[in-house]
Amino acid sequence: MFTMKSIPGGVCAPEGFYADGIAAGLKPNGQKDMAFIRSDTLCDVAAIFTANRFQAAPIRHFKKHGITQTNFVLVNAKNANAMTGEAGVADIEEILAHAKAVFPSLENPVMSSTGVIGVRLPKEKLTAGLETFDLTAKNPDAAARAIMTTDSYDKQVAFEVTLETGESFRIGAMAKGAGMIDPAMATMLCFVTTDAAVPADEMKALLRSGAETTFNAISVDGDTSTNDTVMLLSNGQSALYHREAFAHALHKAMHELALMIVADGEGATKCVAFEVTGAKNDEEAAICAKALTHSLLVKTALYGEDPNWGRIASTIGASGVQCDPTTLTIAFGGVTVYDRGTILFDAETEAKAAKVMRKKAFAIRCDLGQGDGAFTAYGCDLGHEYVKINADYRT
Amino acid sequence: MFTMKSIPGGVCAPEGFYADGIAAGLKPNGQKDMAFIRSDTLCDVAAIFTANRFQAAPIRHFKKHGITQTNFVLVNAKNANAMTGEAGVADIEEILAHAKAVFPSLENPVMSSTGVIGVRLPKEKLTAGLETFDLTAKNPDAAARAIMTTDSYDKQVAFEVTLETGESFRIGAMAKGAGMIDPAMATMLCFVTTDAAVPADEMKALLRSGAETTFNAISVDGDTSTNDTVMLLSNGQSALYHREAFAHALHKAMHELALMIVADGEGATKCVAFEVTGAKNDEEAAICAKALTHSLLVKTALYGEDPNWGRIASTIGASGVQCDPTTLTIAFGGVTVYDRGTILFDAETEAKAAKVMRKKAFAIRCDLGQGDGAFTAYGCDLGHEYVKINADYRT
Repeated sequence: MFTMKSIPGGVCAPEGFYADGIAAGLKPNGQKDMAFIRSDTLCDVAAIFTANRFQAAPIRHFKKHGITQTNFVLVNAKNANAMTGEAGVADIEEILAHAKAVFPSLENPVMSSTGVIGVRLPKEKLTAGLETFDLTAKNPDAAARAIMTTDSYDKQVAFEVTLETGESFRIGAMAKGAGMIDPAMATMLCFVTTDAAVPADEMKALLRSGAETTFNAISVDGDTSTNDTVMLLSNGQSALYHREAFAHALHKAMHELALMIVADGEGATKCVAFEVTGAKNDEEAAICAKALTHSLLVKTALYGEDPNWGRIASTIGASGVQCDPTTLTIAFGGVTVYDRGTILFDAETEAKAAKVMRKKAFAIRCDLGQGDGAFTAYGCDLGHEYVKINADYRT
Repeated sequence: MFTMKSIPGGVCAPEGFYADGIAAGLKPNGQKDMAFIRSDTLCDVAAIFTANRFQAAPIRHFKKHGITQTNFVLVNAKNANAMTGEAGVADIEEILAHAKAVFPSLENPVMSSTGVIGVRLPKEKLTAGLETFDLTAKNPDAAARAIMTTDSYDKQVAFEVTLETGESFRIGAMAKGAGMIDPAMATMLCFVTTDAAVPADEMKALLRSGAETTFNAISVDGDTSTNDTVMLLSNGQSALYHREAFAHALHKAMHELALMIVADGEGATKCVAFEVTGAKNDEEAAICAKALTHSLLVKTALYGEDPNWGRIASTIGASGVQCDPTTLTIAFGGVTVYDRGTILFDAETEAKAAKVMRKKAFAIRCDLGQGDGAFTAYGCDLGHEYVKINADYRT
């Protein structure tokens, strides 16, 4: 048994972690655009990356050097350093060599980037910026703000987990999301810090398992970017490890951040849980739930707060999973509008369903009546703001 | 050898075909919403239908009765008669029985519907409306307008094909499209008439083959509806059949209508050909080209006339096909912006590429450098109008 509580501090909540964000001149108007996370002792590190075949230079750099331990992560926004080839990797090596020259305590520093694809990093701005870092700063808010691109608010969580013995460990995390979010590894960056003594060989499996129902279950626009990264840094300073408690806390951190990312989807006004049950199996439930988060017709109906259940049905039918109109049930929150062949959509039901849709967060429940498979995916609506943000992103 | 020329007349251009459209009261403001196509002799008929597992009642009716010949097609807009179960099929039987009672010459009449999913047909309006039909009318424009939903203009083509012998046959077609268009059978209705004597056993294969690079190569919003239908009616009145000439004319008719559908995608301001070459094989080229037509980030960049080639690259990388940044080339029209690892995107190139994007129609060319596979898919941009139309479609 263990207990868990939210604590302040974001990625600096665990013992021995430091973070800050500064303005290196990549974003206009002096906004923060470069961050670091540092541990005062060496961390084991593991990461899971985008399924995109054109993985960005930071990912290629991480893999090239076979990084398994580090005490420093440098993150920049506004430039993804993707599609930049070998030169993009060399740029990172140069920047991190400079960082080590300035701060000799750094060991195997790594880098992570997000922003526009296909532009070389402005190396001088980054190297000049990192010279101003105060490595003893504990400004998790500044770090979380610095990694934002089109996010409208920073995304952080931290928990303290206390075991039956009274001993405790901490986990902290920050993420950026907004657009280009897809279940095939949500397009985003997420950094998790912990002072739990997580065995190095368990870290990747823990991340993968946690991502399955969190970052891999959300969609903003169905695009999978070149830079997606979820990184776990463990410095073991609590000297504690309780697998179940840690897995629970990690999942909770990832789940909360995932929901924040959907709720802050570009132009999103609603966060909707598509709860699919009764599928042939869990895989088909996931396919169906994710198809619902992707459908433009569903997303625009959400935006219009229109309980257009026909579009939900049509999307299920087009998703390729085993389904039948005579076994299907569709409900908006607790309001069933279609029940195994019977349309329950009179004026009264429509008004009730529309009321559910006016909430900021609600569930659309679809039971396929084909088996025991279940999966919940999280999506958002698509409105004018999304178009505005994305039609004019680079300028 | 044969020659082909455009002629007026739409679905009435071939000998013996009649069509009209009337207002039956389904659309507000007295707009036309019900059409018929009739042949004065019995036609062989074949159709290809949506891949959606929840096929609408008109499709189920067509299959239930094993229709292979008919002389009358009734089409309505505004109500899809989908998700209406056995009652929806019975509604069609009742309406068509009424039609036969009013017009005894009808044989095996069939029905096709488009519009909102999940609402029973207003039978009285339809039966009252069809009593007003003048079966000797040749008003293809009225028919083409009556089947529109969110289309902003009617879509018709007709060709006369003259063989070396001097003899000729005709083919005419009308379609409705607009939203819910996906490569897995574009969401749409299309009716093709011909006086060519097409062998009944070749009709379906001709439709399938024609659809592959036309209706199955376009996307407006990636949704596959419950009602998609492409129907071919052949009354053989020219007593002529030349397979190559007919296949060519059919493909041409379907291709022109497909491009009209994309250009008239909901809120679309541009029609873009995504020409993928150098793929491992044609299948991978098609997957990649269709992924580009689906990407929201690409679609909004098109709307913003922003030559954001990084999003093109990212979408290719995420499409799952064999690709490598060092063999990839990307061009907007004739302007190459990325050439096998080299970014050619300076201010001058960007200006040139942006100029290409300001056109109403242009090509984005992606060579994967992996093989000989090629496919061209057609897509449109996504702008504010799409959101407006779809957030408030039912009302």
